[in-house]
Amino acid sequence: MPVGLFEPEILLPVAGVRWGIAAAGIKYADRNDLALMEIASAATTAAVYTRNAFCAAPVTLARQHGGAAATRYLLINSGNANAGTGESGMKAALDSCAVVAEVADCKIEEVLPFSTGVIGELLPSEKIRSALPQAYADLSADNWLKAARAIMTTDILAKGVSRQVEIGGKTVTISGIAKGSGMICPDMATMLAYVATDAGVESALLQRLLQQAVDCSFNSITVDGDTSTNDACVLVASGQADIAFAAETDAGYGEFAAAVTGVLKFLAQAIIRDGEGATKFITIEVNGGSNEAESRQVAYTVAHSPLVKTALFASDPNWGRILAAVGRAGIECLDVDKISIHLGDVRIVCDGGRDVTYTEAAGQAVMDEEEITIRIDLGRGSAQAQVWTTDLSYDYVKINAEYRS
Amino acid sequence: MPVGLFEPEILLPVAGVRWGIAAAGIKYADRNDLALMEIASAATTAAVYTRNAFCAAPVTLARQHGGAAATRYLLINSGNANAGTGESGMKAALDSCAVVAEVADCKIEEVLPFSTGVIGELLPSEKIRSALPQAYADLSADNWLKAARAIMTTDILAKGVSRQVEIGGKTVTISGIAKGSGMICPDMATMLAYVATDAGVESALLQRLLQQAVDCSFNSITVDGDTSTNDACVLVASGQADIAFAAETDAGYGEFAAAVTGVLKFLAQAIIRDGEGATKFITIEVNGGSNEAESRQVAYTVAHSPLVKTALFASDPNWGRILAAVGRAGIECLDVDKISIHLGDVRIVCDGGRDVTYTEAAGQAVMDEEEITIRIDLGRGSAQAQVWTTDLSYDYVKINAEYRS
Repeated sequence: MPVGLFEPEILLPVAGVRWGIAAAGIKYADRNDLALMEIASAATTAAVYTRNAFCAAPVTLARQHGGAAATRYLLINSGNANAGTGESGMKAALDSCAVVAEVADCKIEEVLPFSTGVIGELLPSEKIRSALPQAYADLSADNWLKAARAIMTTDILAKGVSRQVEIGGKTVTISGIAKGSGMICPDMATMLAYVATDAGVESALLQRLLQQAVDCSFNSITVDGDTSTNDACVLVASGQADIAFAAETDAGYGEFAAAVTGVLKFLAQAIIRDGEGATKFITIEVNGGSNEAESRQVAYTVAHSPLVKTALFASDPNWGRILAAVGRAGIECLDVDKISIHLGDVRIVCDGGRDVTYTEAAGQAVMDEEEITIRIDLGRGSAQAQVWTTDLSYDYVKINAEYRS
Repeated sequence: MPVGLFEPEILLPVAGVRWGIAAAGIKYADRNDLALMEIASAATTAAVYTRNAFCAAPVTLARQHGGAAATRYLLINSGNANAGTGESGMKAALDSCAVVAEVADCKIEEVLPFSTGVIGELLPSEKIRSALPQAYADLSADNWLKAARAIMTTDILAKGVSRQVEIGGKTVTISGIAKGSGMICPDMATMLAYVATDAGVESALLQRLLQQAVDCSFNSITVDGDTSTNDACVLVASGQADIAFAAETDAGYGEFAAAVTGVLKFLAQAIIRDGEGATKFITIEVNGGSNEAESRQVAYTVAHSPLVKTALFASDPNWGRILAAVGRAGIECLDVDKISIHLGDVRIVCDGGRDVTYTEAAGQAVMDEEEITIRIDLGRGSAQAQVWTTDLSYDYVKINAEYRS
C-alpha cells in the first residue's frame, strides 16, 4: 500500500481550465481512460518531455504541436503508450488530435496528445474517436479528481494537490494531478503531470519556471532507474486571476514560483509513495559534494542499489551496503575518512568505517520507521542533492513480472 | 537453483601450489571457512582488487604486501568481510597474516589476506589464530575443491574449473576457483577468485595477462550493479612445468593466454549462473557501437534495468522495456532508426520500433529458454561489448532481505 499517501479529498478548480472524461475502452474495461483538458485561449503553456532516445509518437507530436501553436487542448489516454509503434503510431497520435480538432473546432496543432500504458501496441485511435464527444460534453472546471483517476495505470491511488497563495492581496490557485508508480527515474520517467494556475505568466518565463521546478521534483525521484518513452509534465497559466508575471524580478514572483514548485514536489513524492511495491518512503540527502552533479551521482547510486533497497524493505540497518554503494559511485579521489553517513539522526559511518558509538538498536529504531532519511556528507565542498525513492519488495517483482498478463 | 551449473567433479592439482583448509567458526558452524594457499618460492603472483573507494582492510593490506615482497601464502576466510572496520580491522588483518608468518616461518609481507562475508563486523582474528595450524597441516595439492567450498558465502554451489593445454609438446595445467553470487558488478564485485598455472610467467607479463582476462570475464558480469569492498582475483604462475613465458611474443603464449582467459570466463559465468535468486542466464551483446565504452554502457544499462530483469524472470517478451533501457542509456545522438534488437534469433526492434514481422509467439519461445541472448546493434560503428547477467526474481529479494537474519 502507498506510504503516507491519501487520495485528495478536493482539488480546486482553476479558472480558464476544464477537464472532460470518458471511458474509451482502450485497454481497461469499466473505467475512464480518456481525459481532455481545455485551456482558455489567452493562456500560456509550458511542457517538458522524456529524454529517452526512443520517445513515443505522442511525445514527438506534442513537441511539434507545442512549438507550432498556442495550446488549447491536452488529450490523454491510459492503457496504451503508443510507443515503439513507428509510422502507424504517429498516424494514430495525429488521428487522435484530429478528432479533438473536429469536435472542438480548433486547429490540430492546438492539441497535444499524451499516452501511457503498455509499450509497443498500436493505439486504437478509433476508440478515441468514438469516446471523444463524451469527454468534450463532460468538460467542467470541477473534474480534476476524475481526470487524476482516468490517467492512472498501475497507480493504486489518484494523485493530486491544490494550493492557494495570496500575492499582493490577490488569491492565486494552483492545482495539479500526476500518474506514475514504476519506471520512475530522472528525465521524466513513466510519469505524466498536469498543473495549472490562474495567474498569468509570460511564455518563456513559464518554461523556465517549469524546468526549474521539474529539476527538484520529478527529476529527483527514482523507483527503479528506468525512464520511460512517454513522460511529460505540462504547466498551464490561464491568466484569469488578476495577477500576471513577466519576469523573475516581478513582485511576488518568488512566492508564486515556490508555490508552483511545492505542487510539483508534492506530486513527485506522491508518485514515490505509490511506487510499485513500495513499503517505505526514502529520502537520500547528499551534502558536502564538490558540485551538484557528484552529489546527485552519489544519491542516485545509493537510491538504485538493489542491496540497499532490499535492506530497506527488510528494515535491516545494513549500513555496510550504503557504505559500499557510496564507495562505488565513481567519485574521483573520494577520501573515505571524511565521509559521514547518518540513518535518520543516527550516525552510522565516520572516519572510514562504522561509527564506534553506533549501536544496532539505534539503527534498527530508524529502520523500523516507514519514512527514512539517509544523509551522506562527502566532506568535499558545499554542494548538495536530494533524491526520493522506495524500497525493493516482493511486490515490486510481482507487479513487474505480471504487468502484461 | 543455479542455471546450467554443476559442481566440478575434479579439479586438477597444479604443481607448486597447495591448499589447506580448516573450520575456524568465524560465522558458520559445522563447515570449513578458512583456506590457506601455499605458493612455491619461485612462483610469480599477480592480483587485481576492487575499485570501491571503501575497500576493506584485507584489500588494503594485500595491496601493500603484494607490492613489498614475493607472495608465499594466501589466507582466505569466509563469513566476515572485515570491511568498514577502520583501524581495528587493519589490526585484525595484520594479526591474521602474522599468524601465518609464525606457523609457516615466512615474512608477514609474504602473506596476502582475503575476507568475504558480512560487512562492518570485526574479524575475530583469534579464531583464525586457533584454526590456522590445522589448515597448515592440511596443505595438499589435491585440496582445490575443498578450498572452493570453504570460501563460499551465499553461493549455492562451489565453483571451479581446470584446463590443460599442450604447448610445444608440454602440458600446461590451469586450475581456478571462485566465490560470489550477489553484489556482483564490474570492478570486482563480492567476488574472490584464485587461479594457478604450472607455467612460468614473468611478473609484469602475468599482471597484464590477469588484467586483460579480468576485463572480459569478471568485469563483464553483473547481478545487481553493486560492487563490493573486498573483491580480488589472484593469478599464480608456479613455473614448475617445463615452459615459461617472458613476453607476449613468445611462442605458444597466445594459446596459453587464451586458456587462462577461458578459465576466468568460466568462473565469472559460474558466478552469474549461481547469482542470487537467478532463474535465467542472460547474455547481453552490443554490437555496432562507436567505441567499446558506449557499447558497455548500453549493455550494462539493459543488464541493470529492474524492469527488463523482472520481465526475464516472468519469461515475458516485453521488448518495450529493452527498447526503453537502450533509449535511456545516455548515448549522445543515438539514431533510433538504425538500432536493431534481437531476442535470441528473433528480431524484435528495427526502424525505430517493433519489427513488423515480429510475433509474440516467436518472442515467447525465446523467453521460455533458461539461457537467453539479447543482441543489440547500435548501427554507429564496429565496437562491441558483452555482459552476462541474471533475471530479478522473488528469491533475489528474499535472499537479500534476509541475509543478516
